[in-house]
Amino acid sequence: MTTTPTVLALHTQAPGYADHKADHLARLHKIEGQVRGISRMVTGDRYCIDVLTQISAATRALQEVALGLLDDHVRSCVTDAARTDATQAEEKFEELTGALRRTLRL
Amino acid sequence: MTTTPTVLALHTQAPGYADHKADHLARLHKIEGQVRGISRMVTGDRYCIDVLTQISAATRALQEVALGLLDDHVRSCVTDAARTDATQAEEKFEELTGALRRTLRL
Amino acid sequence: MTTTPTVLALHTQAPGYADHKADHLARLHKIEGQVRGISRMVTGDRYCIDVLTQISAATRALQEVALGLLDDHVRSCVTDAARTDATQAEEKFEELTGALRRTLRL
Amino acid sequence: MTTTPTVLALHTQAPGYADHKADHLARLHKIEGQVRGISRMVTGDRYCIDVLTQISAATRALQEVALGLLDDHVRSCVTDAARTDATQAEEKFEELTGALRRTLRL
Repeated sequence: MTTTPTVLALHTQAPGYADHKADHLARLHKIEGQVRGISRMVTGDRYCIDVLTQISAATRALQEVALGLLDDHVRSCVTDAARTDATQAEEKFEELTGALRRTLRL
Repeated sequence: MTTTPTVLALHTQAPGYADHKADHLARLHKIEGQVRGISRMVTGDRYCIDVLTQISAATRALQEVALGLLDDHVRSCVTDAARTDATQAEEKFEELTGALRRTLRL
Repeated sequence: MTTTPTVLALHTQAPGYADHKADHLARLHKIEGQVRGISRMVTGDRYCIDVLTQISAATRALQEVALGLLDDHVRSCVTDAARTDATQAEEKFEELTGALRRTLRL
Repeated sequence: MTTTPTVLALHTQAPGYADHKADHLARLHKIEGQVRGISRMVTGDRYCIDVLTQISAATRALQEVALGLLDDHVRSCVTDAARTDATQAEEKFEELTGALRRTLRL
C-alpha cells in the first residue's frame, strides 16, 4: 500500500473525494470502531445472531463509504476526463465499470 | 453493547461459534487493519479507484465472517433447538431468517 | 434441468418448500412479468435510470424468493437430517453454506 | 409502465444504452427464460438447493445487465450533461447516486 511518486503523478494531486475527505475519514473511523466492537463481542462469547447484526451494520456502513466515493469519482475524475481527453475518458469509464463490478461483487 | 448476565443466561454459555472463535477473531483483526489501511489511503489522498478496491476487499472479508457465523449457528444453536424443543426451534428459525435478511440487505 | 429419477430418489419426494410452493410460484411468475416489462422498457428506449430502478426491484424480488427457500430448507431438510443422521446432517450443513455463499456472491 | 410522450420529451430520443440495446435485450430474454425455468423446477418439486443455485445465477445475470446500463449511462447521459449544462449535470449526478444506492441495496 506504499504510494510511489510516479503513481501519484499519474493522477491529480487532490483526489476526487477532496471535498468529502473529512466525512469519509469520520465514517471509516466509526467503522474501525464497529469492527473492534464485533471482535469484543466474539471474545465475550456473545450470541451469534447479535454478532451477525453488527456485521450487517458494519458492512452497510462500508458500502455507504463506497457509494460516496463513487459519487465523488464520477463528479470529478470521470467528468474532468470526459471534458478534456477522449482517450483518458475511455480509460476512466473502464476503470469505473471495474470498480462497480467489484463493489457489486459480480 | 454491554452484556447483561440475564441475556447471557437465555443462551448457552458457549456460543455456536465456540470451535471457530480464534479463526473469527483472526479474520476480524485483519479486517480492522484493512479499514485502518483504507483511512490511511484517504488521508494520503490516494486515488478513488484504489480506495474502492480496498473497500470491496474489506466488505467481502466481513461477509465471509458472517457466512462462517451463519454456518456455526445453524450447526449448533438451530439444530440443538430443533432436536429438543419445538417452540424454541420456531424462535430460532425466525431469528435466522431475520439475520439472513439483514445479511442479504433485503 | 431435466430431473432423473435417480437424483429425486436421493432426496425426499416432497421438497422442503412444499408448504410454500404456491407462494414461491406466484412470486416467480410476478418476477417473470417484471423481467418481460424491463425488456419492453429497453425496446421502447426508456430512460436508463428508470430501467435500472425496475432491475433493482426484480433483483430484490428474486432474493426474497431465495430467502424464503433458505428458510424452508433449514426448517425441513437440514433439521430432519440433523435429527436422524449425523453423516447426512454434515452433508446438509456443507450444502447450505455453499448455497449461502452463492446467494451472498462470495 | 406506460410511457407518456411528455416523459420521453424530457430525455433524449435515443437512450444512453442505444449502442448496446440488442445485447441488453438478449440478456433479458435469457433471464426471463431462467426465471421460467426456476418456476418449472419448483413445479417439479426439485431440491431446494438446486433451485437456489438457479436463483443465484439469474440474480447475477440481472445485476450484469444493471452494470452494463450503468456503464452506458455514465458514458452518455452523465458525460453529455457534464459537458454542456452544470445544472443538468448536478441532476444527473444525484440521479446516478440514487440508482447506485438501489442497485447496492443501501
